[in-house]
Amino acid sequence: MKLSTMHDLLIHQLQDLYSAEQQIIEALPKMQKTASSKALQDAFAKHLEETETHVKRLEEVGDELDIKLGGITCKGMEGLIKESEELLEMDKSPIVDQALIAAAQRVEHYEIAGYGCVLTYAEMLGHDDIVDTLKDTMDEEITTDEDLTTIAEDDLEAMEDEE
Amino acid sequence: MKLSTMHDLLIHQLQDLYSAEQQIIEALPKMQKTASSKALQDAFAKHLEETETHVKRLEEVGDELDIKLGGITCKGMEGLIKESEELLEMDKSPIVDQALIAAAQRVEHYEIAGYGCVLTYAEMLGHDDIVDTLKDTMDEEITTDEDLTTIAEDDLEAMEDEE
Repeated sequence: MKLSTMHDLLIHQLQDLYSAEQQIIEALPKMQKTASSKALQDAFAKHLEETETHVKRLEEVGDELDIKLGGITCKGMEGLIKESEELLEMDKSPIVDQALIAAAQRVEHYEIAGYGCVLTYAEMLGHDDIVDTLKDTMDEEITTDEDLTTIAEDDLEAMEDEE
Repeated sequence: MKLSTMHDLLIHQLQDLYSAEQQIIEALPKMQKTASSKALQDAFAKHLEETETHVKRLEEVGDELDIKLGGITCKGMEGLIKESEELLEMDKSPIVDQALIAAAQRVEHYEIAGYGCVLTYAEMLGHDDIVDTLKDTMDEEITTDEDLTTIAEDDLEAMEDEE
């Protein structure tokens, strides 16, 4: 990795996010299959579609900047997904749903931090053409995180009512 | 890992954060040493002190709940720190500072997601005695993330002025 200019750092961070998004596309169907509540299954399915769009948007950004995005592995996301894999062996239950949400929110927060950085760099470097595209993805990551909180809280309330 | 009750999940998440915080204590002095700006060095030094307090707070929470926190490794944090290690070999520069901030913000966001979950579970389970302690840490993680954004923006402005 060469980091001599802010442009180098922008490229590196975009490559990192490109790898992260692809790892998420691999992980989400497994998480969806492990989820027990319909609301959580639907949230994972919806976010899978969004994530496919995020990959396409990053490819557009790569074309715009004339850079190659593939070829690196995001080790941060690798760790986050490794952490969630223990859950995939478990029997479906409302508790496992909560654990899946906790894992997914760590993934979302990784992306919120990452897109926050590339947005700042793109603005600083005057790449106005890619700022809006990156902002759309950032907004969807934040909304997904908020939706997951809502599902977690609703499910916890339902558990309390059952007691 | 056994996840039969929300209490099991709370314990598991506290153990995960306990491991995460300890890994951060190992990583921060190296990040501080690699940082070139005084503001960033100071921010890492301040957050190291806070993180030592976070570990102690988790130990208090562990005592309160009569649970053992050690013995598991947070794989998510392991990945995030592995990702930052490439930077530690680099020569000091304002660009490397930005990359260090980007790595540190991913770490902060991991913790914001993690403490967000344990806070929700502790409230749901009626552990009012530990909620305030966890909230203090959560607030410090959010403030650290915001402070890092401010340092990044100030340094980027300084870079622009130099051009």
